[in-house]
Amino acid sequence: MKTITLSDYPIVLGDIRNTLPPLLEPYAGRTVFILTDTNTRTHCLPILMEAIHHKLQLHHITIPAGEQHKTIHTCQTIWQALLTHEADRHALLLNLGGGVIGDMGGFCAATYKRGIDFIQIPTTLLAQVDASVGGKLGIDFGGIKNSIGTFHNPKAVCVDTAFLDTLSNRERRSGWAEILKHALIAEADQWPKLIRNELPIDEVVFQSIQTKQRIVLADPFEKGIRKTLNFGHTIGHAIEALFLDADQPLLHGEAVAAGMIAEAYLSVRFAGLQEEALREISKHILPYFALPLIPIPQFDALISRMYNDKKNIGKEINFTLLKALGQAETDFYIPAQDIADSLSFYNRCLQKT
Amino acid sequence: MKTITLSDYPIVLGDIRNTLPPLLEPYAGRTVFILTDTNTRTHCLPILMEAIHHKLQLHHITIPAGEQHKTIHTCQTIWQALLTHEADRHALLLNLGGGVIGDMGGFCAATYKRGIDFIQIPTTLLAQVDASVGGKLGIDFGGIKNSIGTFHNPKAVCVDTAFLDTLSNRERRSGWAEILKHALIAEADQWPKLIRNELPIDEVVFQSIQTKQRIVLADPFEKGIRKTLNFGHTIGHAIEALFLDADQPLLHGEAVAAGMIAEAYLSVRFAGLQEEALREISKHILPYFALPLIPIPQFDALISRMYNDKKNIGKEINFTLLKALGQAETDFYIPAQDIADSLSFYNRCLQKT
Repeated sequence: MKTITLSDYPIVLGDIRNTLPPLLEPYAGRTVFILTDTNTRTHCLPILMEAIHHKLQLHHITIPAGEQHKTIHTCQTIWQALLTHEADRHALLLNLGGGVIGDMGGFCAATYKRGIDFIQIPTTLLAQVDASVGGKLGIDFGGIKNSIGTFHNPKAVCVDTAFLDTLSNRERRSGWAEILKHALIAEADQWPKLIRNELPIDEVVFQSIQTKQRIVLADPFEKGIRKTLNFGHTIGHAIEALFLDADQPLLHGEAVAAGMIAEAYLSVRFAGLQEEALREISKHILPYFALPLIPIPQFDALISRMYNDKKNIGKEINFTLLKALGQAETDFYIPAQDIADSLSFYNRCLQKT
Repeated sequence: MKTITLSDYPIVLGDIRNTLPPLLEPYAGRTVFILTDTNTRTHCLPILMEAIHHKLQLHHITIPAGEQHKTIHTCQTIWQALLTHEADRHALLLNLGGGVIGDMGGFCAATYKRGIDFIQIPTTLLAQVDASVGGKLGIDFGGIKNSIGTFHNPKAVCVDTAFLDTLSNRERRSGWAEILKHALIAEADQWPKLIRNELPIDEVVFQSIQTKQRIVLADPFEKGIRKTLNFGHTIGHAIEALFLDADQPLLHGEAVAAGMIAEAYLSVRFAGLQEEALREISKHILPYFALPLIPIPQFDALISRMYNDKKNIGKEINFTLLKALGQAETDFYIPAQDIADSLSFYNRCLQKT
């Protein structure tokens, strides 16, 4: 078992049968809710239940799986379930699932009776390395990802890579996008090890959480360096939103992978990234994910979505770009035409593979 | 102009034409939203507009007036208006109105893009002395008052008693309930001055805010002494909810006035309050408000509502009671039968007047 202690809450890595029981101790005799989606209820709950021995008043809340359910409507279902079972301020919510469950369950806990305790148990690679750090919670609203939310720390995060065995290959790959991003913005020496797949998964997850934690601790409210974590996300979020209503929506990591290629192109144009590094990045990212072409008639809609991204101040679109592999810089304001060029570059790369 | 500075934000008392402009300075050139309800838009906005000189990108959001609109549905209207006008993280929301506008507008600001700045401009006596202190935000959900919400501090609160001239007598009286409560729980020497109506309104408001501030500062997250502020509210909230769907809903202060009489009765039974003090309290509170009888068949529904009040731990109903005039004590757990007795006492008092 490894523990990373943030200023306010621990992230414990290891077998959940060892990590969870001591965290549940203070809740003996209290009401405890487990939030799952239809997938994690089937595949992950049996693993979690092996870790629960205390005498708890246990209730289950299960919601439909998928980003399209990360809505205020689903929040109402969760809040109502808490009310129905008379959850008081001393209740605990265990969020068992990927980013949607963690973000939305955390938001519901943070706002129910002005805040009850919650523990995050991320079951996807993406949620383990990304959502587990930083206390960002939220839901999608008005077609904008995470446009409603809050900052609120969980009591703890339990990361057990055993849950990753429940994932499809596609979902596991999606998580790699954030791991690659952490290397690209801050850990140049991790990049070659990652693309050669040299490290055991526990080590990859541990390193990646530590990188993110270091950045978040330096800037908890996203005023400066934390914005480097947005690399790939300005364009990535817009792509994700665009495909949200498609027959086969993109996974978050897939959208970020596409966003990273487009933003690496902008990095060459605006931040001094070497052409060679751009080739290296797109060469290794593209074949790893099954990414779609972005139809040219959609470019405008995509760019106007970016104007409504949280990170944009006033009427300009704010980017984090790479100066070099392992080094990011924040607050680039890029004209719409260049964003369109970066999307064309992404499409061209895709057509070559 | 008087300023009370809490740990994190100032409450400024005085003519808003003097107090607001320096607070708006940092927002020059930014997008500023003014949230009003249909009443404050007509009666209070003209006063506010005299205080706005900076070059701001001003947008108005107006919602229907009344506690019955303090819902997640109205939040969606507010969030959508912020999105439509492309409010970014540096936008400011001015909440111009009573408790509903302050609590709900604050909640929307605290959760929009994980938090934008807001300034509270309370226009009712109740909101000026009560909601202005403490950073409690929220909406009603599932039939339970303030069951969804968060703690988040405004940038500032501007209290100008000129707005009170826009109120009906009934609304002004409603605000007195919290002022009387502050005296009953913590300031015995204020009580005789208040019931003799000896003090100018600015002085009453200033004193009452200071009392509440002293209590909240000692206990920002409501773990101990802050719970004394709940005097009159356990029963009061349930009464308010009960009458919410009535033809003529009760104002918050009216419900709290009724709650204080019932809970003063319980204070005699459980906390050692003198009978004489109970008579003094009900004698001065009752004639001041136009209060309704509570139908006996509704007692059970009322008591079961209390079980779902935020302040209740597990399955008992938690009361703050008075030991003496000016002294409160928290964490009394009262059996349902005694609560029913207190409601009968309240009804009897009412029938005598």
